[in-house]
This record gives sequence, structure tokens and C-alpha cells, in this order.
Amino acid sequence: MGALHEGHLALVAEARRRSDAVIASVFVNPTQFAAHEDLGTYPRQEARDAELLAGAGCSILFAPDAAEMYPQGFATSVQVGGPSEGLETDFRPHFFGGVAVVVAKLLNQVQADVAVFGEKDYQQLMVVRRMARDLDIPTEIVGAPTVRDDHGLALSSRNAYLSADELAVARRLNGILREAGERAKAGEPAAVVEAAAAEALIEAASPRWTMWRSGARRTCRRSAGPWTPRPASWRRRGWGRPG
Amino acid sequence: MGALHEGHLALVAEARRRSDAVIASVFVNPTQFAAHEDLGTYPRQEARDAELLAGAGCSILFAPDAAEMYPQGFATSVQVGGPSEGLETDFRPHFFGGVAVVVAKLLNQVQADVAVFGEKDYQQLMVVRRMARDLDIPTEIVGAPTVRDDHGLALSSRNAYLSADELAVARRLNGILREAGERAKAGEPAAVVEAAAAEALIEAASPRWTMWRSGARRTCRRSAGPWTPRPASWRRRGWGRPG
Repeated sequence: MGALHEGHLALVAEARRRSDAVIASVFVNPTQFAAHEDLGTYPRQEARDAELLAGAGCSILFAPDAAEMYPQGFATSVQVGGPSEGLETDFRPHFFGGVAVVVAKLLNQVQADVAVFGEKDYQQLMVVRRMARDLDIPTEIVGAPTVRDDHGLALSSRNAYLSADELAVARRLNGILREAGERAKAGEPAAVVEAAAAEALIEAASPRWTMWRSGARRTCRRSAGPWTPRPASWRRRGWGRPG
Repeated sequence: MGALHEGHLALVAEARRRSDAVIASVFVNPTQFAAHEDLGTYPRQEARDAELLAGAGCSILFAPDAAEMYPQGFATSVQVGGPSEGLETDFRPHFFGGVAVVVAKLLNQVQADVAVFGEKDYQQLMVVRRMARDLDIPTEIVGAPTVRDDHGLALSSRNAYLSADELAVARRLNGILREAGERAKAGEPAAVVEAAAAEALIEAASPRWTMWRSGARRTCRRSAGPWTPRPASWRRRGWGRPG
């Protein structure tokens, strides 16, 4: 969706390793925003994005407007069950439908051999892979590792929304999750690790972030088995195969 | 869906006129049947279908089974609004979703330049065209004229369900519709033609066909303006452009 950072450029680098020419799209997709969300204020910097992409070896930039992607009379929706259930969908029920339809369109437009998506949005990667496989879109969906800042926080265009204080909190949350992962790997019982991490996450988050807090409680309650970056329910159903 | 007749072979002939090689699929698609419908008894004659297609100059026959099209874990649905609203959807709300997903898959699998669909299923043709355009599937959707028997009745695999008496009724229904079309073309007021045709259709249909009867009443009530094979609401919204 643009407002590019090193995470996006790592996707371009991965695509270059796998093919002769790389095409990038920059499109702030309205169908994946709910009415109350930040479509109008989502960070936009198209000229700088174009420079960054050219510098990274991208051959073509496709930056359509909404009317080009969703012309008058547009009437098709794509819904993916399976990997889209729970997690993000609990808070943004519209989200993966919007992602699925725009990615189906972009893949069909470009007819590329491979398409690279960041593992930062891991559930999205699983949804896109499921959709492409189910609709027999002849493009291989490749996942690329998350790029993080020096404090371990994943790079994200929306990090631009954070004040210095909020950025410090975000980095603490990331540290808590990593520590929980280490403790689980070291053999501590899942329930103990989970309870401690949930408490620490809620403690660390500013009281202002009430939505996030309820989210943390619910997500923590949902997870079953040892902590892992891939939810147990996905692994069980075979959705967690890394790309 | 197989059980081929001259109508299907006319699609192959149209495809041959437009391209060097023709691929046909024969697949009785479970996602476009409701639980109470005729999935289990739909006419199947694959060996004869293969012979007919080869004789008509078809290069490849793709006849998958349901597990190949919808493997374990399949989770994607495609919904088309616009041209799918009303008519068939009033009676078979599941139908066009099943058509849209299987046609999206077949088009993506084959990556053909053109795909030919019969105008007999005119609403389906409009839905497929809308879906292919919306998802940017790079295949041109072409409509081919309906093939009819000597009495004017459209050929259909499901005509095999009709007894001799029922076939006679079906042909009468067709005659009534044609006559109404002629009267409307000749300038009779739409409301008069419509009322007369609705009465004659209900009269002609056997009292056993209660679902069909209520269908006729509703469809007749829905149509606005002069009778035409393309409903006025489609023409108004630009869906009725012939393929």
C-alpha cells in the first residue's frame, strides 16, 4: 500500500533473486478498510516510493487509482475461509475479503511467475496463498522474512502513527512476545508462559489503548499449546507451511 | 456439465472459429447444486461426451472429479452481485456463487484467449462476464446463440428429465413467450402483452409444476417495459450487451 520502508524493499530484493523483472504495485486499497478506519489518512508518498523502487531494481511500478481497480459496475467479492478465521478477522471482519479481491486482481493482471508477500502479515500470507491455490491462479506465492528495527520491532508503514512514547511501548510488547517464545521453547508449560505474557502485555500497553488491550486478552485466551509465531490451529490444519 | 447435445457442440464450433486449439471441460460442479437438487441424478455420459467432442474438433477434454477441483482445505468463494440479482437467484440463491468459483478456476487453469458460453443461460453469461472482468482474468468471454429443436425449444441436458407430455408443455411455453415477443415488437402495450402471456404460461403449465407456476407469476410481475429476451433492468444497467 505504499509508504515504503526497508521491509518492502526486502520483498523487491527477494523477487529479483527469483526472476528477471520485478513489478511492484502501490495501491491504498479501499476495500480492506472499514468506514471508521484510516483510509483517508493512510501514509502516502508516491514520488518517494517510485524513487525507492527504482533504486531497488524494480522494473515497473503499477499505481492505479480506486476507479481503475473498481470501475462503475464492479460487483465481485472473494471470500476466503480457513486461514482467515479468527485473529485479525475478530477485529477487522472486512479485511481479508478486501485483500483477497485486490490480490486476485493484481495477480491476474500481472500473470507473474512468483509474487512475494511479507511474513510480517503472516495470516494475510496464508490467506493469499489459500486464495491463489483455490482459484488456480498460476503464480507461486512466496513469503519473505519480517524486517525489524534495531529493537526487534517489525517495520510497518503505520508505525509512523506512533509518538516516541508509543514507539517505546510497541518495542516493549515485541520484547515480551519474544521472551515468551524463548521460555516456551525452553520447555516451560504453555499455560504458565501464556498467562505471564498476557499479564505483561496488558501491563506494558498504555491504558489509552483499550481496543488493543481487549485484543490482547482475547488473542491470549485463544492460543492453545506452546507459544509459536504460527498459531496451533493453523499448523493442525496444514496452513502453517512456511513459504 | 456434460450430457452433451448440439448446443454444446455449437460452442466448440464457435471456439474453433476463434482459435487454433479448443479445450472443453466436463464437470458436474457440486457447488452449484443445493442439497435438494439433482446433483446425484444429473445426466452423465462421459464416454459419449468424449467421442462427440473429439468429432467436433476439440483438442483436449478436461474431466476432473470433485476432489481435484475442491481438494481438502478448499476455502474460497466468489460472489457476483449486479447481474446475478433476481431471476435465477430468486429460486436458486446458491447457484451463481457455485458457477463463479468453478469458472474462475477453469479460466485460470486454462489461460485461454477466449471462452465460449451459451446464451441459453443468459444471466449466467452476464455473471461470468462480470466476474472475469472484475477479477481481471485475461480471457475474453464470448456468448454463442441458443440452439433450439424444431419446435423452438432450447436444447438442454435437463430436457432428458421430461416425459413426452412434459416436453409438449415445454414447447408450448416456448411458443407463448415467442408470441408475446412478437406482439410487443408489433407495438402492443407492454402491460397487455405481459398479462396475457403470464395467464397463458400458467394455463399451459401442468398443475403439478407448482414451483414453476409461482416462478412464472413472479418473473412476469418483475419484468418492466416491453417483453424482451434481455430483461429491461439489465439493459438499463448496461448488462445486456450481447457477447
